[in-house]
Amino acid sequence: MNKTSTGNFFEDFRVGQEIAHATPRTVGAGDQSLYTGLTGSRFALHSSLPFAQSLGYAGAPIDDVLAFHIVFGKSVPDISLNAVANLGYAECRFLAPVYPGDTLSARSTVIGLRENSNRESGIVYVRTVGANQAGVEVLSFARWVMVRKRDRAAPAPAPVVPKLAEAVGTPAAPVGISCAAYDRAAAGGAAGWTDYAVGEKIDHVDGITVEEAEHMTATRLYQNTARIHFNAFAQKSDRFGRRLIYGGHVISLARALSFNGLANAFCVAAINGGRHANPCFAGDTVFAWSEVLDKRELSGRADLGALRLRLVATKDKPCADFPLRAGEGYDPAVLLDLDYWALMPR
Amino acid sequence: MNKTSTGNFFEDFRVGQEIAHATPRTVGAGDQSLYTGLTGSRFALHSSLPFAQSLGYAGAPIDDVLAFHIVFGKSVPDISLNAVANLGYAECRFLAPVYPGDTLSARSTVIGLRENSNRESGIVYVRTVGANQAGVEVLSFARWVMVRKRDRAAPAPAPVVPKLAEAVGTPAAPVGISCAAYDRAAAGGAAGWTDYAVGEKIDHVDGITVEEAEHMTATRLYQNTARIHFNAFAQKSDRFGRRLIYGGHVISLARALSFNGLANAFCVAAINGGRHANPCFAGDTVFAWSEVLDKRELSGRADLGALRLRLVATKDKPCADFPLRAGEGYDPAVLLDLDYWALMPR
Amino acid sequence: MNKTSTGNFFEDFRVGQEIAHATPRTVGAGDQSLYTGLTGSRFALHSSLPFAQSLGYAGAPIDDVLAFHIVFGKSVPDISLNAVANLGYAECRFLAPVYPGDTLSARSTVIGLRENSNRESGIVYVRTVGANQAGVEVLSFARWVMVRKRDRAAPAPAPVVPKLAEAVGTPAAPVGISCAAYDRAAAGGAAGWTDYAVGEKIDHVDGITVEEAEHMTATRLYQNTARIHFNAFAQKSDRFGRRLIYGGHVISLARALSFNGLANAFCVAAINGGRHANPCFAGDTVFAWSEVLDKRELSGRADLGALRLRLVATKDKPCADFPLRAGEGYDPAVLLDLDYWALMPR
Repeated sequence: MNKTSTGNFFEDFRVGQEIAHATPRTVGAGDQSLYTGLTGSRFALHSSLPFAQSLGYAGAPIDDVLAFHIVFGKSVPDISLNAVANLGYAECRFLAPVYPGDTLSARSTVIGLRENSNRESGIVYVRTVGANQAGVEVLSFARWVMVRKRDRAAPAPAPVVPKLAEAVGTPAAPVGISCAAYDRAAAGGAAGWTDYAVGEKIDHVDGITVEEAEHMTATRLYQNTARIHFNAFAQKSDRFGRRLIYGGHVISLARALSFNGLANAFCVAAINGGRHANPCFAGDTVFAWSEVLDKRELSGRADLGALRLRLVATKDKPCADFPLRAGEGYDPAVLLDLDYWALMPR
Repeated sequence: MNKTSTGNFFEDFRVGQEIAHATPRTVGAGDQSLYTGLTGSRFALHSSLPFAQSLGYAGAPIDDVLAFHIVFGKSVPDISLNAVANLGYAECRFLAPVYPGDTLSARSTVIGLRENSNRESGIVYVRTVGANQAGVEVLSFARWVMVRKRDRAAPAPAPVVPKLAEAVGTPAAPVGISCAAYDRAAAGGAAGWTDYAVGEKIDHVDGITVEEAEHMTATRLYQNTARIHFNAFAQKSDRFGRRLIYGGHVISLARALSFNGLANAFCVAAINGGRHANPCFAGDTVFAWSEVLDKRELSGRADLGALRLRLVATKDKPCADFPLRAGEGYDPAVLLDLDYWALMPR
Repeated sequence: MNKTSTGNFFEDFRVGQEIAHATPRTVGAGDQSLYTGLTGSRFALHSSLPFAQSLGYAGAPIDDVLAFHIVFGKSVPDISLNAVANLGYAECRFLAPVYPGDTLSARSTVIGLRENSNRESGIVYVRTVGANQAGVEVLSFARWVMVRKRDRAAPAPAPVVPKLAEAVGTPAAPVGISCAAYDRAAAGGAAGWTDYAVGEKIDHVDGITVEEAEHMTATRLYQNTARIHFNAFAQKSDRFGRRLIYGGHVISLARALSFNGLANAFCVAAINGGRHANPCFAGDTVFAWSEVLDKRELSGRADLGALRLRLVATKDKPCADFPLRAGEGYDPAVLLDLDYWALMPR
């Protein structure tokens, strides 16, 4: 009996396969504290119990992105331990708030497989769902990763490439939540949904330098075991020669930086897609800017609306001129190009 | 509408102006854990619930200095984002314990303004008050900072320089708190109030080296956004060439080090004044010593008394000979010269 | 009155002496979060409240090794501040789970003393007990350390060397705990007690690089004050020239790494002995392997059994070939050789 996991390889997956991921995780007040300490998150909803209650939340939910990382982290040992690359996300929906005391567990379904022409690896598409102790789904997302084959000669499965929406539709209005009593002064920003225009770009101004101890502590907090983040000894013989920062940590930093300009984007309702354009390493200083891609009213809701936002993170490059492209590809300073829906009081 | 804050400049302030700071913060058990992990705090009052209850506290309050940092941090985006220098503190009073579960918010009043003769900047004096969710003031302090002008030509306000007390008067005896059952063995020190003499100096012996990841995590935990602590890229072109450690982190380390010699100084009642004599950088090893400046009985209280203490922190210099002055100014190894009142069982 | 502790020296100890250690410590949810973030612990018992309850625990207990570190840390200021070396542990028994909200305190008894022939130092043997707020003993262990003499000429006590068991006997079945409903898929491992064979060796595969900020934060979290871990300035003139990582942090990392291969070893019941074979420094990448030394049924229990395990940690050396010895001594890459009893569902 093989007791040590070296992760699944491409030929270990079958379309339709259901995988229950290990290690349910009870989220505690300490997790949010540590997340605040490691990322600088300042959104009032997660920082203040009375603020959260004033919107109708039962408690102060943890940061949406923190909940994402915990669910994502559970999927790593089964899905992406042998990943060559994380290729993309889609259809990420945040379905219910996660409160301290909730226990998150995760399961994934394999929704697509396609061997690469070099027969060395293939693309695995999964849909991962995180649920709380009551079985309520709190978030779900699709992602696809390039996974090595154990044996080049293993037969290729029939290719199945799932249709994934280019963007999640207008998010639903959250049940039981109202911005009628939303206190913008407490939240730290005067601008509401009506003040943002499609096409508007916002430089988030601030920059934050990442240390090895920080990204590793964050990634371990999510019980994410991807070795490229932790093992400097093995990374010496990797193409980068050093530890790579978990792309999700960059998302967290960019979201925290976006407070300065989007302080009232209190809720991440969905992530339409995301791309880690370049790797991030310890010592890099992360900057961010946003673009308003779309805005939508929510049916029957005069108190809040949805903004579709592009969130771009860069390294060692302030964002006053909104760096993104260079020729056909990304500017080499761009780390992240994330497309998401946020909710904001009108 | 300008959505991104670049902070207030000198000409944005008016005497009498009231500023409600953003981001109320519910303090959790995780904050004290992280504070302990980052500073090494060992005072029994904050470490042990039964110990705190034995003195009459409703719970184990968080470290006084941690509460100070959280309130201070809220004031940074409005008051000192464009500060050239933090010049001083005065009249800091700790008015009520802060317990896990309390939500702190902060507001400031501008109590003085004086343009500098070079017209490039001016001094802003504020009084900042932190209150809990019930509106009870938990601490207040005055501070003054040198703030840049946006426009050199902006007219100077009439100078107003507030009278600030050189020292807070003898602290009041804390209501409902008694040291009758104070357990010195549990607290870790045999010496009580009667054992200390005015003029006595105490070398706190131990030293603690600071890492970038630590001071940044601490400062983010307080949601303090001053960019000099976080942005190595921008700091490369600053006069120091690197990130500067939040002066408050040095206070926390010095207070934690002072446990060895002042283990029973269980409560910081007031800070009379403080000066950050030299900057602290990652890699520096912080040492500390104290001097007893004064001691006072508290009216009607046989169980405890107040000590007025000077707390000096140095870098890379052990304190057996109590370094402080060099010629007219501070010894270049001195980081901090803090003057505070502590309470101690008699 | 000497207010500052420089720790006890060899001649300050007497056989039979009882020492109540300072600073009771209320364990909070934040401590487990930080422990998870700093070590990568993934054992489901400590991660998930429902999982813990399914085994009959009243809550999700903190990691056994975290409880050990907190109790050990309390003993440091009294026992090992002037230690030249920590020589060994024995007879460590985990007697009751520690839950968030519990307050741990520690006391030690001097059970042996033997001056070294060079008269510069001597060996101090102590038994340390940690208890919770109800006075229930949660763990106890013996350890022996080489402690400097203050004065070489001080008379030697009559040598007393306690008999310590080479191994703790088969652990008792934990009262009220049952693995009848143990969910191996949730815990992350298929193998149970019956699947392990005496003599079997397991490479835990993964490696984790340690940073200064991490080991210092962990060690401060335990309120362990041993200066060699914190004071880079003083360490420059030490034989290693730099900060030494607390050996307990290596135990934590090795235990966390052992999840990959021993995911169902949910409970550390006892530590028979441990040796820190070589020092660990920041920048080292820690790997681990285990060997099954023994296995025992527990009387009357069909649901679980005990495994006696050797847990070996190395630095910068993957463990596929189970490095341990080199000639007469340890392989210079070996950091830790720990012998413990774990409980596992059958």
